[in-house]
Amino acid sequence: MLKGEIITIGDEILIGQIVDTNSAWIGARFSEIGIPVSRITSIGDRRDEILNELEKALSRSEIVIVTGGLGPTKDDITKKTIAELFKCGMRRDEDTFNHVKSITEKRGFDFNVSNQSQADVPEAATVIKNHHGTAPGMMFERDGHLLFSLPGVPFEMKELINGGVIPEIISHFSLRNIVHKTIITYGIAESVLSERISGWEDSLPKYLHLAYLPGPSGIKLRLSAYDIENKTSVADEIEKQFSILRDIIPFNFLGDESSSLVTVIADELKKKNKKLFVVESCTGGAISQTITDICGASEYFLGSVTSYTADIKEKIVGVSDDTIEKYSAVSRETVIEMALGALNISKADYSIATTGNVGPTLDKGTSDEVGTVWIAVAERETGKTFAHRICLGKLRHENIARATSQALFMLYAILKGNHDFKPNTTYL
Amino acid sequence: MLKGEIITIGDEILIGQIVDTNSAWIGARFSEIGIPVSRITSIGDRRDEILNELEKALSRSEIVIVTGGLGPTKDDITKKTIAELFKCGMRRDEDTFNHVKSITEKRGFDFNVSNQSQADVPEAATVIKNHHGTAPGMMFERDGHLLFSLPGVPFEMKELINGGVIPEIISHFSLRNIVHKTIITYGIAESVLSERISGWEDSLPKYLHLAYLPGPSGIKLRLSAYDIENKTSVADEIEKQFSILRDIIPFNFLGDESSSLVTVIADELKKKNKKLFVVESCTGGAISQTITDICGASEYFLGSVTSYTADIKEKIVGVSDDTIEKYSAVSRETVIEMALGALNISKADYSIATTGNVGPTLDKGTSDEVGTVWIAVAERETGKTFAHRICLGKLRHENIARATSQALFMLYAILKGNHDFKPNTTYL
Repeated sequence: MLKGEIITIGDEILIGQIVDTNSAWIGARFSEIGIPVSRITSIGDRRDEILNELEKALSRSEIVIVTGGLGPTKDDITKKTIAELFKCGMRRDEDTFNHVKSITEKRGFDFNVSNQSQADVPEAATVIKNHHGTAPGMMFERDGHLLFSLPGVPFEMKELINGGVIPEIISHFSLRNIVHKTIITYGIAESVLSERISGWEDSLPKYLHLAYLPGPSGIKLRLSAYDIENKTSVADEIEKQFSILRDIIPFNFLGDESSSLVTVIADELKKKNKKLFVVESCTGGAISQTITDICGASEYFLGSVTSYTADIKEKIVGVSDDTIEKYSAVSRETVIEMALGALNISKADYSIATTGNVGPTLDKGTSDEVGTVWIAVAERETGKTFAHRICLGKLRHENIARATSQALFMLYAILKGNHDFKPNTTYL
Repeated sequence: MLKGEIITIGDEILIGQIVDTNSAWIGARFSEIGIPVSRITSIGDRRDEILNELEKALSRSEIVIVTGGLGPTKDDITKKTIAELFKCGMRRDEDTFNHVKSITEKRGFDFNVSNQSQADVPEAATVIKNHHGTAPGMMFERDGHLLFSLPGVPFEMKELINGGVIPEIISHFSLRNIVHKTIITYGIAESVLSERISGWEDSLPKYLHLAYLPGPSGIKLRLSAYDIENKTSVADEIEKQFSILRDIIPFNFLGDESSSLVTVIADELKKKNKKLFVVESCTGGAISQTITDICGASEYFLGSVTSYTADIKEKIVGVSDDTIEKYSAVSRETVIEMALGALNISKADYSIATTGNVGPTLDKGTSDEVGTVWIAVAERETGKTFAHRICLGKLRHENIARATSQALFMLYAILKGNHDFKPNTTYL
């Protein structure tokens, strides 16, 4: 089986100035096309180490991806060392030279010697054009193994992998015939999920492999088939199996890999032609921010109020001061008035409201424990309001993120007609 | 000089299911105590590779940190392989056994065989107690070199490094005498910064080393002194130098490493006893979310409105429909009415307003280009309103993040009395 290997070059990774997110992205992408990444190594900008590491990697792995260590401030150490490894000199690549020239002119920078040197590549390199930056991608071949050197800027690296590296790999090697598809579930623990779908799992055709991939935004489930003959019929079978799965966990099955709570909420609201307004207290704008993070939110999202004081809750949202005084700002009564207030001050069909203590210390004038959050969702058409309390921990960031997810998940459940929805009330 | 090395174990890293953030954190922490990390390697959960890699690492580096590969689902492959490496059997650690028992009881989990196995460690291990989880930290020694095996959960790993690993390193090796301090600057490009402070840099005492550490939230500047005798006097000298620097770039010098735009805004508002209200359109709640991300925000932050439609701008914020019709929603006139509206509907002393097109596609009814954002800050006391336009790119996430930072930086400048502040108007 083909093996891939990743080497990242740069002192900035070793001293922790930047986190290497490139390797995970490449690992996932390569896993998709059936080339397992067997190791990832980060080393500094030093000739001996680069030479030694590339030599070993190129001997043991068919495909080696090198990222970083390029760019004018790096003194071209990576390029020079690769030229050494391939026992060649440097040449100026005319296409790259003109490309860098046009980029620097467009950006109003000086086309100086250091920028020009971006066009110098080892003679053994096949240049892969970097449409989004000045450092070119490069491919090298030795004994049938391929080494790719790419800039470390994530956006440029990704474009080069998809547009240049993978096509080259496909033309050099015969890849395994793989079909797979991933879907995402939300709001269900791994152990509960595996119990709930065990019958489905047992009845899967033997050539389909199921993988659980838990992550912060839900558990992904991947079905894969390897070395199969008829891709289309297998892809159809996977679709069929996932549609059976959807009926087993209708409220937890969000959709394909690109789905998230906000995309499925967007789909539901658009399908029903309904609008949303949000009133946040303890989540402080995080719900609104999450919803508007995707393009086109203005089609179904009218806006929000972050009411961080009782005065704003009363004056802008219309919560009665009696309610806050009698029941406190963190209470079922207050969160329900916030959700109803959201419908009153806007033309929305649905609203979400949150109020609570996300910690780490208690706000003045509240008596509840840190980690207590009330969430409400109001539905104009039925006149119903749903309110639930969740108990979180003491970590502010985590609490805000969890309350945001729970609030969005509650709205999603109600949009899907699951009025009996109960959030996870306790985190440990 | 002592060398450190990091090995992360786990197939989930190689297939890109999780990003390895641990290594960057350890790299930064070790850099602080004067132990450079020379390489980071990620390998899978396979005996041969683990054995081979640990053997090489332990031979070439005085300190080897291994993270991950523990936990009940890993079939104890890492622990068994380490036992092989140190040619010893396994033993049950009583303290760990009781600790895991008490944790599982508290969480209401079953104290089953797989949980119990967490207490099995190689005989050669010195156990480092993990107060926050079930997998213990372990230390091994060979020929004066130390190998630490730690769980991969970031929170547990960090506590173990600070509370166990670093004290052990200090007791085994004599570390270099290092003094350093890092400050953070904002809103100034590296090239401009280095020009502006070159006189200061040239006049630094020869034993102080200056490092530029650019990152997404500003450029950090670090002053370090190595192998010095009198730590206190050097620390005083560093303080003195940074206070000179603060006077050279008063509007860009935020403070020590823990500072950020929101912490310095919080400090200024609290010092002046002033309150803030925000009205966001294109930033969609991101400004509010960023401000409330730090504890105690309710002392100076009253709340916000996200007005994602003209109707909400008019009805809740009080922007006149004539203004929007005549000048469009993305205009100087509209953003100023939004900022003034913010002061009107709240008791705030300062307000921020944003409106623009963050893309990637244009909203209906607007004529401006994607990437155009208007930002305004209003000050009740002086009756002044400041408005600026910035031109961003086509990437939605980046545009929202940049508009948020620019808006906060503009408020900071005005709080500091820098009324001539001009934002970076163009990004390329």
